[in-house]
Amino acid sequence: MARSTVEIAGHIIDSLILPKVLDLIINLGAEFEILEIQVGHRRADRSYARIQVEASTPELLGRVLAKIKEHGALPVEAEDQSAQLEPAPADGVFPDHFYATTNLPTWVRVKDQWIEVELPEMDCGIRVDVNALRAECVPIHRVKKDDLVVVDHGGVKILPVERRVPREAFEFMSSTVSTEQPKGLLIREIAESMNRVRRENGRILVVAGPGLVHTGASRYLADLIERDYVQVLFAGNGLAVHDIETALYGTSLGIYVDRKIRASEGHEHHLWAINTIRKAGGIRPAVEQGLIQHGIFYSCVQKGVDFVLAGSIRDDGPLPDVITDTLKAQDLMREKARGVSFALMMATTLHAIATGNLLPATVKTVCVDINPAVVTKLSDRGTFQAMGLVTDVEPFLRELCQYLVTETVGISES
Amino acid sequence: MARSTVEIAGHIIDSLILPKVLDLIINLGAEFEILEIQVGHRRADRSYARIQVEASTPELLGRVLAKIKEHGALPVEAEDQSAQLEPAPADGVFPDHFYATTNLPTWVRVKDQWIEVELPEMDCGIRVDVNALRAECVPIHRVKKDDLVVVDHGGVKILPVERRVPREAFEFMSSTVSTEQPKGLLIREIAESMNRVRRENGRILVVAGPGLVHTGASRYLADLIERDYVQVLFAGNGLAVHDIETALYGTSLGIYVDRKIRASEGHEHHLWAINTIRKAGGIRPAVEQGLIQHGIFYSCVQKGVDFVLAGSIRDDGPLPDVITDTLKAQDLMREKARGVSFALMMATTLHAIATGNLLPATVKTVCVDINPAVVTKLSDRGTFQAMGLVTDVEPFLRELCQYLVTETVGISES
Amino acid sequence: MARSTVEIAGHIIDSLILPKVLDLIINLGAEFEILEIQVGHRRADRSYARIQVEASTPELLGRVLAKIKEHGALPVEAEDQSAQLEPAPADGVFPDHFYATTNLPTWVRVKDQWIEVELPEMDCGIRVDVNALRAECVPIHRVKKDDLVVVDHGGVKILPVERRVPREAFEFMSSTVSTEQPKGLLIREIAESMNRVRRENGRILVVAGPGLVHTGASRYLADLIERDYVQVLFAGNGLAVHDIETALYGTSLGIYVDRKIRASEGHEHHLWAINTIRKAGGIRPAVEQGLIQHGIFYSCVQKGVDFVLAGSIRDDGPLPDVITDTLKAQDLMREKARGVSFALMMATTLHAIATGNLLPATVKTVCVDINPAVVTKLSDRGTFQAMGLVTDVEPFLRELCQYLVTETVGISES
Amino acid sequence: MARSTVEIAGHIIDSLILPKVLDLIINLGAEFEILEIQVGHRRADRSYARIQVEASTPELLGRVLAKIKEHGALPVEAEDQSAQLEPAPADGVFPDHFYATTNLPTWVRVKDQWIEVELPEMDCGIRVDVNALRAECVPIHRVKKDDLVVVDHGGVKILPVERRVPREAFEFMSSTVSTEQPKGLLIREIAESMNRVRRENGRILVVAGPGLVHTGASRYLADLIERDYVQVLFAGNGLAVHDIETALYGTSLGIYVDRKIRASEGHEHHLWAINTIRKAGGIRPAVEQGLIQHGIFYSCVQKGVDFVLAGSIRDDGPLPDVITDTLKAQDLMREKARGVSFALMMATTLHAIATGNLLPATVKTVCVDINPAVVTKLSDRGTFQAMGLVTDVEPFLRELCQYLVTETVGISES
Repeated sequence: MARSTVEIAGHIIDSLILPKVLDLIINLGAEFEILEIQVGHRRADRSYARIQVEASTPELLGRVLAKIKEHGALPVEAEDQSAQLEPAPADGVFPDHFYATTNLPTWVRVKDQWIEVELPEMDCGIRVDVNALRAECVPIHRVKKDDLVVVDHGGVKILPVERRVPREAFEFMSSTVSTEQPKGLLIREIAESMNRVRRENGRILVVAGPGLVHTGASRYLADLIERDYVQVLFAGNGLAVHDIETALYGTSLGIYVDRKIRASEGHEHHLWAINTIRKAGGIRPAVEQGLIQHGIFYSCVQKGVDFVLAGSIRDDGPLPDVITDTLKAQDLMREKARGVSFALMMATTLHAIATGNLLPATVKTVCVDINPAVVTKLSDRGTFQAMGLVTDVEPFLRELCQYLVTETVGISES
Repeated sequence: MARSTVEIAGHIIDSLILPKVLDLIINLGAEFEILEIQVGHRRADRSYARIQVEASTPELLGRVLAKIKEHGALPVEAEDQSAQLEPAPADGVFPDHFYATTNLPTWVRVKDQWIEVELPEMDCGIRVDVNALRAECVPIHRVKKDDLVVVDHGGVKILPVERRVPREAFEFMSSTVSTEQPKGLLIREIAESMNRVRRENGRILVVAGPGLVHTGASRYLADLIERDYVQVLFAGNGLAVHDIETALYGTSLGIYVDRKIRASEGHEHHLWAINTIRKAGGIRPAVEQGLIQHGIFYSCVQKGVDFVLAGSIRDDGPLPDVITDTLKAQDLMREKARGVSFALMMATTLHAIATGNLLPATVKTVCVDINPAVVTKLSDRGTFQAMGLVTDVEPFLRELCQYLVTETVGISES
Repeated sequence: MARSTVEIAGHIIDSLILPKVLDLIINLGAEFEILEIQVGHRRADRSYARIQVEASTPELLGRVLAKIKEHGALPVEAEDQSAQLEPAPADGVFPDHFYATTNLPTWVRVKDQWIEVELPEMDCGIRVDVNALRAECVPIHRVKKDDLVVVDHGGVKILPVERRVPREAFEFMSSTVSTEQPKGLLIREIAESMNRVRRENGRILVVAGPGLVHTGASRYLADLIERDYVQVLFAGNGLAVHDIETALYGTSLGIYVDRKIRASEGHEHHLWAINTIRKAGGIRPAVEQGLIQHGIFYSCVQKGVDFVLAGSIRDDGPLPDVITDTLKAQDLMREKARGVSFALMMATTLHAIATGNLLPATVKTVCVDINPAVVTKLSDRGTFQAMGLVTDVEPFLRELCQYLVTETVGISES
Repeated sequence: MARSTVEIAGHIIDSLILPKVLDLIINLGAEFEILEIQVGHRRADRSYARIQVEASTPELLGRVLAKIKEHGALPVEAEDQSAQLEPAPADGVFPDHFYATTNLPTWVRVKDQWIEVELPEMDCGIRVDVNALRAECVPIHRVKKDDLVVVDHGGVKILPVERRVPREAFEFMSSTVSTEQPKGLLIREIAESMNRVRRENGRILVVAGPGLVHTGASRYLADLIERDYVQVLFAGNGLAVHDIETALYGTSLGIYVDRKIRASEGHEHHLWAINTIRKAGGIRPAVEQGLIQHGIFYSCVQKGVDFVLAGSIRDDGPLPDVITDTLKAQDLMREKARGVSFALMMATTLHAIATGNLLPATVKTVCVDINPAVVTKLSDRGTFQAMGLVTDVEPFLRELCQYLVTETVGISES
């Protein structure tokens, strides 16, 4: 029998943290005994619990402790235990049993001090600079030989995201909204959240897939960009090509976006659009040469909005702006995602999940797709803070723009 | 008024080609007059039609002729018209109005001779070597300055894929199979098709997504590999990581694939699996060092089956075997897909569509996914020859393996 | 070997009818020889073909002839063959081998005369009144002992629905519109079609499911009713209960439709709504007593719009207006559907398919659902004329109302 | 300010009941203060909490108390408060503000005694026989004038379903299983559960839709019936017609279930099947006359398994065995569902939800469908105990039968 005592504090009862911890202990095959519990009387009060965990083997105990740590339950003996550090054996390789990060705020104990881990991101290692007393998340491909990396679970502390009291409007809807619920109010709340973020000079990230253009919604996204609601745009070759095809020929995948003629004239338009931009040397030169005169990317160039176009194996072309190396694309997305406080993901699975992987859990994330599976997948992959909205992206964006119009006043001042 | 006379021959009535051509003419806003028609009396006979197309403007006429050419309707005056060639203005840039290819067998007329275009692939340009009298499809990123490329539609002929008489079993099912139909027979026909391909020493390409491992189906794919039913495997980092995670720890995304314990132990296993392979230097070294002892990629290495792992921005790691540059990955996929006569795509959207883009229309393609949207998307994107099966991939593969067992005799001889 | 010669005339080539017939002959295992073909030169011209069908057995020949007849191919010897009539052996039972109807215009030959079958509806028998020289479709449960019913396929002629020249806007879109296409134009075309129908004093049938209320779209349907765009409404208990719950309490399934509070107050509201209406004696009395003062059914009562509420086993209550006997409900739906020239089905599978079963193929049918499977199912079940739109019902109705506003002028005159 | 003190006891922390109660109080707009809490130290121990609820108005307080009562939180002053009874004002009408039931075990206080409510079913009223000291759930259409019915929430107590310690295998999986998880183990657990139920002479209810026949799975269901795994079968006209069509003609919707020929011979077979059974006078007579010699319903008749065929407005025919009155069908389903301890629902939305409405929360329920929306809908509608499995029904049933074969030993003894 192996035993350990853990402590957990905060709004552990009404934020469901304590029950989740107890649940995990049992599910992993261990047992618990609550040694002490102090429950806050009012919602604003904090609670505290001391729990003894008992497992059949030290290995099992280790696994249980590692898992419940993600919910903020820390072994008492660990309070003054230092993180174990090992040098990376080679460039791009972590030491064995490296500690794999979550997207939650994390602290490591180094030289008897708890220091916060910078650049929070899930599925990374923690690299420690012992002299500078700094720690940061590092993706595996960027670790260098002999970098000191945290191994095992000792000396690591996680702060679970609690729901605040009183709740913000946004938290209110932190769960997937099914097809059979009224969406108007939620769209209004998203608009309010975006306005609040902008009033506080926060940055908004939009992640979008090509369906946005096919459904005729690009004018609304261009509008958001023009009105300073988008500070960064992540997308792929497809969104840009279809947006530019529309700017050049009025079609998207050969279908006229705003005329009655639906008979496709085929695939030539989007290939010619690619060729035109390749010839011009990129999107920005094409805008500057007057080749493109409206659309999402025209607006991005005009407003100086950063965009990252990440490559994929199904790309045609691609456009010269596309970063075909996926690691480089990830790294640039990492960099541009920094400081973002709101992410709006629309009509894309690949880019939504890729971006979700990079965002700390504290970034408010809204995912809009007509396919419920996309929304579910995003949460399953760890971006649990994502609020999902299962609806058609064109009417969603149209309505969002309308709500933002009504409320723009506060922002234009800022 | 602009006019042109086109001819069309073959099984143009019972293969729906003639009606489609007439339909397109009308839909694009032009008119037709059938000048002559000779209909084959029996199914094996060929038919012939001469049709006058009339459009309000020469531009419209041009678009109509371009479009109906994809169905084999060629202007009579074009029979002896040569393809127009222009030099590429720069590396990676086609001349304006370059002819964009379909995935159908295509001929170009050069020096009064019709020559077949090699390496058929959709959405490419046609590069002509006038001296050697050869022509080939070239993706835009591989065209070099001054390469001669076909522009406009003159001097290009397409052979629409007709259904043969008598039909092969496989053609029989060339359409999407909905969830509410019996699948056993179709799976048996797929098995028969695969056996036929192998008996004739044809090559089978498998394209697979990570869902295949999550659902516990990897043992069946490994089995297919062991029994020589897979000559090439296309996948992403995910499939390989989850397969190797299972080989190393028995889990997939932290869930034990064959034990009762479902409580996830988290994301460490798949990150540790990545780290282990990075340390070993790749999948092959890991197999040779005895680190991996079963699974899809173990079998690939043992049987010498080629695999291409193409990178994506949502990859963790990735494994050293992953080609992170999407253009390089595409090029390798192009090369390895050559000579394949059967493609089986399972539980993947990205890789299925990317592969579909590269395959000529003559490659038999089966796409299996529990989500009907994937199957639809593949056809929408041009891989119209794909037969879709909406079902769960694990029972599909299990059943396929059973049918192949029963019928293996013929193959083992080959 | 069994042989028969069939004739087929009309726009048989460009409307795909001839190829379909040839296809069916082969697929069913028979062979064909085209004895004569005259192809119309221009689109407005009609074509004609005489085809010999050859099958291995008379049974197979019979099946082939029966099947191709649905596409208008009639045996020449059948031109003067009379329909075979047999008396129904009992109430609610057809004679063996009764002829099962399609939803296409059908003629039967009685006393050397071709007479049109009235009340066209699929999956019925044809009852003939020999003396009055009349024939009509009769559902099995309404046939009476000794009614004369057509058996076998002789003496029956079907008129396939051809696409007209020039095409109406509406025909233009007679196929499913996927999630990734612009919908604005289609919604405008639907609006135009509805306006045209109303200008010609045609009747519009709306079929709606409860999701319409949950998503907050009921105000738009009420608006359509107020503005005379709805002549008949088919729905179930659910739509009515949720609409009335909203009218009484402002909630739908306990969720406030237009306030911020999403925490459900549970199921009481909808049960109390049912009880209130049961106590009042029905929807109409409840409106008259002033209990209900807005909503879909309030508008129906005020405008005198007929509604049929058909029962289902998942109903709570139900409301007194619900016809719990499904056969009686079907019969009333049959009656009320007569003379309808446009059907708009939204957010319902059960009622859409049930209504589709009753409508002749000549009724323009639009089916709107966020789930692509519903749209597909409707066509699969025989309502092939249905145009499907995969989108969210709330923004669809909102946009439809906007287009109808703009164009109302013409109608208010009528 | 309105205040009330509630008590809650049991495994209220690890079964998430306490957090849910606190969450509800806040979400509904009230505040709480935890007056006392005693937490069980070990998992087997029970906990206890006393909570003061404070709301701005007595109405709000009432709503909050009503809602948290569903989770077992009872006002302390209510412990000796009697239920308020009012006579039903008319047949089929409850008194105003009647108490609407959940599907959880419920007690009412009558004459200073807590008595358990019989026939637990959601969305009913509670009818009390004061003299006999009995109470039962009564659906609205069966209440008679002057029956005494509970109104308001006083004197009603609910027992939330807690997870037991140690957990049963089955509880283990009480949540929806997505498409991307291994299903083999779950199917094995379902098999074990079914075996356990049968060993204890429990009754198993199967609810099935027509997709089961279309996919070729009927042989497996027939097999389950033959081997005593099915005690009651709920379905609609469709399942029976398609099963009988297969028995008579080998087709389902005109498609041969086990032959290669897929070209549909049309809708005649299923209509003729209906006519044949109507002529025979029903399914049982048809079996007895030897007309049907295999299939699901043949097995039901042979084994004496009860089946309820409930009518719907999309039925063709229907078969004489179909209960076309939906209220009568519901009542018969109620009766036959009594005593069932396991429900297996496959490939049906309508019948699954209708049955879910009638079952107490204590019945283990498994819902299998290839469409994730069906599974979600069932839980949303209140059948929260349902375990969902998103997979293809044919391979599911095939695998289930295999597991049941292996383990049949124990049962044959019983």
